[in-house]
Amino acid sequence: MLWYRYLMETSPPAPYDVFKLSCPSREVFVRVGERWTGLVLLGLRQGTLRFSQLRRQIDGISQKMLTQTLRGLERDGLVARTVYPTVPVTVEYDLTPLGRSLGDAMDVLRTWAYTHIGDINAARQTYEAANRQL
Amino acid sequence: MLWYRYLMETSPPAPYDVFKLSCPSREVFVRVGERWTGLVLLGLRQGTLRFSQLRRQIDGISQKMLTQTLRGLERDGLVARTVYPTVPVTVEYDLTPLGRSLGDAMDVLRTWAYTHIGDINAARQTYEAANRQL
Repeated sequence: MLWYRYLMETSPPAPYDVFKLSCPSREVFVRVGERWTGLVLLGLRQGTLRFSQLRRQIDGISQKMLTQTLRGLERDGLVARTVYPTVPVTVEYDLTPLGRSLGDAMDVLRTWAYTHIGDINAARQTYEAANRQL
Repeated sequence: MLWYRYLMETSPPAPYDVFKLSCPSREVFVRVGERWTGLVLLGLRQGTLRFSQLRRQIDGISQKMLTQTLRGLERDGLVARTVYPTVPVTVEYDLTPLGRSLGDAMDVLRTWAYTHIGDINAARQTYEAANRQL
């Protein structure tokens, strides 16, 4: 878990502040939270995939959304797109080292979700029960 | 960083799969990525805040979105809401232990954003320059 040790040893650069609308970190922070970004990164974390394989992997993603998400990730340097001159052309997607480091952070969120679903569902039942009584 | 050691020692429960639309982990994973969720968790990570303080903290959030986000987080057991019978009433928000553990995972994402903004901006410039040439 080198990425984690790296994060802990690197203190965040002073000028950035995710709470400020004008800070460039805000846009990056919001971008990585977009609906399909995390799932595409997690999907590619398992290895190189073609578009159709990735689409099958991520239940419920439309062709349009996968195209848009991959284009955004490629633009941000998180995903590499390789075109092979076969007939028809083969296009493969893979994480870059930068994408892999963000994928690791996403995996922490996934593990958090797996670990705490029970807690969240219990909280929801308590909340609904309390609001029914009002 | 107890939460991290906890995550590493706990293997994810086998039946969950974030890629499946029907898996309850999918909804939780998508929920935590919602536009304002991360920023509210990070804001409250610094301590107890009143609604107006939290709103000032998070540049650009509307009253409506902050209300909705806080209600969702309260329902999920991530945020505790305490009402003091002053005139007018004082309402304070705080993270629960569960919310604190998710806030820690969000802080990893924030640190990632701070650390890699330079890489992302460089990738974007390269991408735009390559696409202008086409």
